This record gives sequence, structure tokens and C-alpha cells, in this order.
Amino acid sequence: MSLDMKLPEFLAHAIALEHEAAERYLELADMMESYRNDEVASTFRDMVRYSRLHHDSIVERAKGIALPTIRSWQYRWRNPPEVGGEEAFDPKLDTYEALRYARENELRAKEFYAQVGAEAGDAEVRSLAEEFAAEEAEHVQALDDWLARTPRP
Amino acid sequence: MSLDMKLPEFLAHAIALEHEAAERYLELADMMESYRNDEVASTFRDMVRYSRLHHDSIVERAKGIALPTIRSWQYRWRNPPEVGGEEAFDPKLDTYEALRYARENELRAKEFYAQVGAEAGDAEVRSLAEEFAAEEAEHVQALDDWLARTPRP
Repeated sequence: MSLDMKLPEFLAHAIALEHEAAERYLELADMMESYRNDEVASTFRDMVRYSRLHHDSIVERAKGIALPTIRSWQYRWRNPPEVGGEEAFDPKLDTYEALRYARENELRAKEFYAQVGAEAGDAEVRSLAEEFAAEEAEHVQALDDWLARTPRP
Repeated sequence: MSLDMKLPEFLAHAIALEHEAAERYLELADMMESYRNDEVASTFRDMVRYSRLHHDSIVERAKGIALPTIRSWQYRWRNPPEVGGEEAFDPKLDTYEALRYARENELRAKEFYAQVGAEAGDAEVRSLAEEFAAEEAEHVQALDDWLARTPRP
């Protein structure tokens, strides 16, 4: 599919992506807290905050623009690969898996934004998308740093 | 993982599952309506209604019981396989794919309930889970009937 999006379509995606990210980081933060892993919990809480700030600023930008409906699979995080298949109902992710899960989804968001940045005909969409891709790249980097100092289970 | 769930844990899963199903059927119904496929849209709307009724009756049963938190990947529908990978942001599912997507998720719910029904030590949990598994099996059957009369793309 072409990712040559118009502004309303792009903003709708970005709002949904950031909302989803905030929800998932909140969940991961709570989970890390239940493991008494306060350091990683606090990183995830920072990411909740960034996602919400970003979300709110995009909502602000979208004021007065009629946004299209976005399908859930266009923005939802995947399930962690560790809990796929038979074990889909297993609630546990260890710290390493949680970080990797977050990383995978951030990378997916980054790639989405980067692709829109490369393919959009609208100059404002291109410029916003490139900016958002750079932000996501920073998140991926932050998660990589955490992964590098987290023991693999 | 063992699915020997206690009542609060089981109810929390069931509430989350039914809520998710209602959300996704609503989305599928809207999508079918946008394709002017009113017949399939109306089937999906029926399923929204069943899921909500079921959801509400479980919430009623859970009154006064403290429920645990359920992680999103324990109840969320998977992404449609057709839109995995590179095309994750493609909004389109044709009727056949939408029905298959719903079927896969209903089957997953059915298997979850059936497994709890087989493994739970608590007699009430076993009996509720078997009842819910039978309901999901009916939904799978209804979707199979639709799939049988829907042209494969």
C-alpha cells in the first residue's frame, strides 16, 4: 500500500499510535512495578508521559480538521511474541521481554513514520512524519540501551 | 501455563474478552457498511449485541468481587494475518478476510474457555467456562456458515 497520506489521515494515525503507546507503556510500567523493578518501571512511566505529550500536541494540531476512522490493526501494538500461540493468556513478561516487546513496537512506529516521510506528496505531512520518525528512533535507542544492560533470561 | 483459574481471575478474563469482541465487531460492522455489504454488517452488529449482553451479565456476576488486572495480550484480538508485516497499516480487509479474522479470534476465545473448563479446580469456574466455550463455538459455527457462502477473493 502507498503511504502517500494526506494530513487528516496522517494525523489520525499518529494520534492513534501515540494513544496506544501510552496505554501499553502504562501497562508495562505497572507490570515492572509488580516485579519491584522500579528503575525500568520509571523508564516506562517516562515513556507514558512522552507519548501523552506527543498525543496531545498532535490533537492540538488536528483541531478543526475532520479525521478519518482508523482501524485497530493500523495502530495497535502486536502481542509479545513470547506469549503467542498456546500461551497467549500467560500474563508474565520478564524485564528483558518487556523491553524487547516495547522496542519492536517502537521500531514499527518509526518505520511507519519514516515511510510516510519518504512517500507523502504533502510537504507538511512529510515534515511532520520525519520529525515523528526521529522521535521514535530516540525511543528505540533508549530501549536498546536498556536491553544492553539487562540480563537475557 | 496452567489455566486452573480462580473465579475472580476467570471473570476478569471473560469481561475483557467480551469487551474486546464487542469493540472489534463494531469495527468490522462499520467496515462492512462502508463496503455496502449490509448483510454481513448486520451479522457483525448482532455479534456486537451478543458480546455486550454477555459482557454485562458477567459484570453483574462479578459484582462485589475484586478483580485482578488483565494484560492486554491476554484478551486482545490478534491483527488480521493479511495486514501483518509491511502492510500493517493497510486499512482494507475484504469480507472473506474479515470473517476469517473474526473466526480466528472467536476460536481462540473458545479454546481459552474450553481449556479453563477442563483445568479449573473450582466447580463454578469449570461450569461457567464450559458454558462460555459452548457460546463461542456457536459463534465460530455462524462464522463458518458465512465463510462457506462468501466467495474467496
